Amino acid sequence: MTATHAFDTAIRLAHNGIGSYRGQTTPEYANMVGPFGGVTAAAIVRAIEDHPDRIGQPVALTVNYLVPVGDGSFDIALRAVRTNRTNQHWTVEVAQEHGVTTTATAVFGIRRDAWSDTEATMPAAPDPEGLPRAILPEGVRWMRNYEMRYVAGEVPAVASESTSSTTTLWVRQRPARALDFAALSALSDVFYPRVFLRRGRMLPAGTISLTTYFHVDGAELARQGTDYVLASAHAQRFARGYFDQTAQIWGRDATLLATSHQIVYYKD
Amino acid sequence: MTATHAFDTAIRLAHNGIGSYRGQTTPEYANMVGPFGGVTAAAIVRAIEDHPDRIGQPVALTVNYLVPVGDGSFDIALRAVRTNRTNQHWTVEVAQEHGVTTTATAVFGIRRDAWSDTEATMPAAPDPEGLPRAILPEGVRWMRNYEMRYVAGEVPAVASESTSSTTTLWVRQRPARALDFAALSALSDVFYPRVFLRRGRMLPAGTISLTTYFHVDGAELARQGTDYVLASAHAQRFARGYFDQTAQIWGRDATLLATSHQIVYYKD
Repeated sequence: MTATHAFDTAIRLAHNGIGSYRGQTTPEYANMVGPFGGVTAAAIVRAIEDHPDRIGQPVALTVNYLVPVGDGSFDIALRAVRTNRTNQHWTVEVAQEHGVTTTATAVFGIRRDAWSDTEATMPAAPDPEGLPRAILPEGVRWMRNYEMRYVAGEVPAVASESTSSTTTLWVRQRPARALDFAALSALSDVFYPRVFLRRGRMLPAGTISLTTYFHVDGAELARQGTDYVLASAHAQRFARGYFDQTAQIWGRDATLLATSHQIVYYKD
Repeated sequence: MTATHAFDTAIRLAHNGIGSYRGQTTPEYANMVGPFGGVTAAAIVRAIEDHPDRIGQPVALTVNYLVPVGDGSFDIALRAVRTNRTNQHWTVEVAQEHGVTTTATAVFGIRRDAWSDTEATMPAAPDPEGLPRAILPEGVRWMRNYEMRYVAGEVPAVASESTSSTTTLWVRQRPARALDFAALSALSDVFYPRVFLRRGRMLPAGTISLTTYFHVDGAELARQGTDYVLASAHAQRFARGYFDQTAQIWGRDATLLATSHQIVYYKD
């Protein structure tokens, strides 16, 4: 008998008719306020995957965080707005009793044989086994579900500003779990806020909108198994209360699995 | 008397009750199939700006292109799903008689005094005045509304593959028009498809989803006046029918105005 992984419990959905799903927050994926944004993104991807009309696999996902999800149940409502021959456009709303907490749009698609090339270069990094396990900050419960080994830009332990917002880390789910699109969607939000690194301290910050582009199909993703991925992120501009973050997620075999972007509010 | 700029004509909206707008495609902004995606993004931004409940200015915009907009009128339906103290989340649908053509989400926000920094570096480029005007490809009508002076990665004139997908160009509206959020939204889609540059030829390609993050408020944007902006874009991965593009748009005074990302389908 295998125990259910805490991640699978966190994105488990009851089906309440076509396009309507109910999930439940779990304490294991709690963030400082509300759940980890990545697990909400993952639940949305899982809901679309479960929809009987779905074609293909995730190509693009944008999740907008309107207000923190409260502890308890949440309802996901999906609509396939348009189905083309090889892609499909979805709109999504996540709601609780008090109103809509999260909106999303997604594109699913079927990949075809075509000229392909990875132009980006994987950041240089020593093997994860030789790096220390990250010391996790207090009060950020969801991080305990990941094994993190920082290559650069770890969470600043003492007040020390940095001129670079780049963080690169090896990361995998803990306990080990085979990588799938739901897990990859969550990993795209696995970075702590870039402004912490620049300012050398924690301060109020939260993702407003997250966009992830997927570059592999399910078979290519499955080849990653339970191995570490190399995740790297940096900001381009911090501008009066909002900064951007742009990220890459690489398989250990140098496959660029996903690129991801977000806009984050901060107070400083 | 001043003639109306073709761009203002292309994003002119009739107000049909709160949250409901009607626009009209114009031949000046035609792309090979349907209108230039940037002008659709601009019309969406303008619609939100015109909404009586709108607070703040654009922070994030995601536009999903489901199917080309047909020549003629289109209806934009907006909803402010959530208004927080300093930001507001919108969902948008653009429809024609045959159904929804475009969906979007947007975040508008109010900027506050806060520690700020531009970490990205503006690409080196000679002044635009010393560079030749780009020769525009046949049959891409919308491009005539822009003065483009390529620094690198111009449209490949003859079959010649490139190892780099990077294009950098000085660009401004033609005739000159002061930069505003609608125009900046359109500029975020001003690049021809990166796959043309890599493959050295034109082939079927189209934007599926476009996300733009805005890093300035209206006053900072207005300071750009009618001057050129420096726009630079590259792809990270071309993967079996879908590639990503990530872009920066800089003011001539080295202000990073916007960063933008898109996922594009292609056949090759």
